Amino acid sequence: MMNNTFETHKEYWIDEYHHGTRYGIKGEILVQTKSKFQEILIIKSKFLGNALLLNNCWMISEKHDNHYHECLIHPALSSAKTIEKILIIGGGDGGSAKECLKYSAVKEIDLVEIDELVMELSKKYLQKINKDIWDNKKLNIHIKDGIEWVKSTEDNSYDVVIIDCSDPKGTSKGLFSLAFLKDCKRILKYGGVFATQSESPESFTNEHLKIIKNIRETFDFADPMYSYVPMYPSGLWSWTFASDNKPYFQKPLLSRSKRIEEETLIWSSSYQKGGFNLMPSFIQKALNQS
Amino acid sequence: MMNNTFETHKEYWIDEYHHGTRYGIKGEILVQTKSKFQEILIIKSKFLGNALLLNNCWMISEKHDNHYHECLIHPALSSAKTIEKILIIGGGDGGSAKECLKYSAVKEIDLVEIDELVMELSKKYLQKINKDIWDNKKLNIHIKDGIEWVKSTEDNSYDVVIIDCSDPKGTSKGLFSLAFLKDCKRILKYGGVFATQSESPESFTNEHLKIIKNIRETFDFADPMYSYVPMYPSGLWSWTFASDNKPYFQKPLLSRSKRIEEETLIWSSSYQKGGFNLMPSFIQKALNQS
Repeated sequence: MMNNTFETHKEYWIDEYHHGTRYGIKGEILVQTKSKFQEILIIKSKFLGNALLLNNCWMISEKHDNHYHECLIHPALSSAKTIEKILIIGGGDGGSAKECLKYSAVKEIDLVEIDELVMELSKKYLQKINKDIWDNKKLNIHIKDGIEWVKSTEDNSYDVVIIDCSDPKGTSKGLFSLAFLKDCKRILKYGGVFATQSESPESFTNEHLKIIKNIRETFDFADPMYSYVPMYPSGLWSWTFASDNKPYFQKPLLSRSKRIEEETLIWSSSYQKGGFNLMPSFIQKALNQS
Repeated sequence: MMNNTFETHKEYWIDEYHHGTRYGIKGEILVQTKSKFQEILIIKSKFLGNALLLNNCWMISEKHDNHYHECLIHPALSSAKTIEKILIIGGGDGGSAKECLKYSAVKEIDLVEIDELVMELSKKYLQKINKDIWDNKKLNIHIKDGIEWVKSTEDNSYDVVIIDCSDPKGTSKGLFSLAFLKDCKRILKYGGVFATQSESPESFTNEHLKIIKNIRETFDFADPMYSYVPMYPSGLWSWTFASDNKPYFQKPLLSRSKRIEEETLIWSSSYQKGGFNLMPSFIQKALNQS
């Protein structure tokens, strides 16, 4: 029996609200549910593809996959001394793992996601973001608390540590604490790079400044890179990278970046150079004063 | 007689729609009218201050004044060989003139705005953007068609030509044509700089590429600089700068930039360096192919 289901599905405006502004996407609701940790909404939209909202905040859409994940992953993976073993905390939509798997030198990825339901729904509804990564033997999935995982990991275990999480509240709050950052530093190998999303300098100014301050307190070198994710509050977002001994993350290795650049939509070595310089004057002034 | 008018004023969500997405600001409507050229809406909002919408597109808000005008004006004014005489086409809200007047070397500004009503309403409702510029003797206001103005201007008349207009359609369409650009080149003095808003690479990709192409065809050197204006579609915006003989706009003169940087919220010399490098990979690839 065939039904023309298209006619019966209804489109709505789904908005994220932030300080008297809103960003909305018109779409049809595919999933509306609640996990142990958060409210989950997945919609199907004409222009941005399928999109995920957690606790009323836009997380990702098929269209903005590159905007977010390329900027989180490539500055770290193109520059760390070695990239055999990668840790991703969060990242249940699979986009970060997908970008990491583009590097042939990567041998093993531990993906530690606390919310199994987000991952299961992403496998089903965000396939364009995670593609065929789930069958890749290099990828180990752990449904666990990232803070506990890092705490119980031996020293010098990973080449790169990626934090791919939501705003610093609720389950994600601990992923920005000094104690957690110190553990991340401890489990990194010599020449390793730490990477985290670090909020919008425009919409979450205080949180952004605090994150940079904490990471700079923990590592020898740390800098935010700025780029855009249209579905996030203000459009401008940041990712902060850190390392010891040298600011490795500032210099992509040509041997890795050249091939990666061929298939990126947003990131390139020169784009990254721009992003590290694009610190708004009011953020620069606030950092100088603190 | 005192009225508590606050209770009687009603707040609405006012949205700009773009390809299945929308950006809304919650506010109270101050003015809703129509000029000879366009529909005009001005609202009062709690978080972004007063804001202007033309033909259902967000133009500016008190909060985003710096985000837009600093990026249009300072790369040009900080770098042109001399900056005695400036031409602004459009810019009826007064924000561009205000930024230009921060340079003591500026002796005369011709502001050519086609829509008198936009300027009159801006004087009344966007005072935080235009401040006390209207009484400044360096500023000459001309309610005229910018295309005609440029056409009838003598060669080598201006140090800097600024195009501060809306999207390339309707009254603004001609401000992106090759014929108009050639006139802008002709009326610039030796060492002069041309500056224009050049749309969002994300939301208006084809228009953005076309603008760069036309400007590069006209001038010896031309590059887009990228930054963010949260109320514009996608958040990422661009401004394109051009000059002959040398890419003057790439190098702010320290003698001018140092003092300007003290009071900016967004722009600085290093921010600008970032903005010129922040060309998304898909735009770089499209330009390489064309």
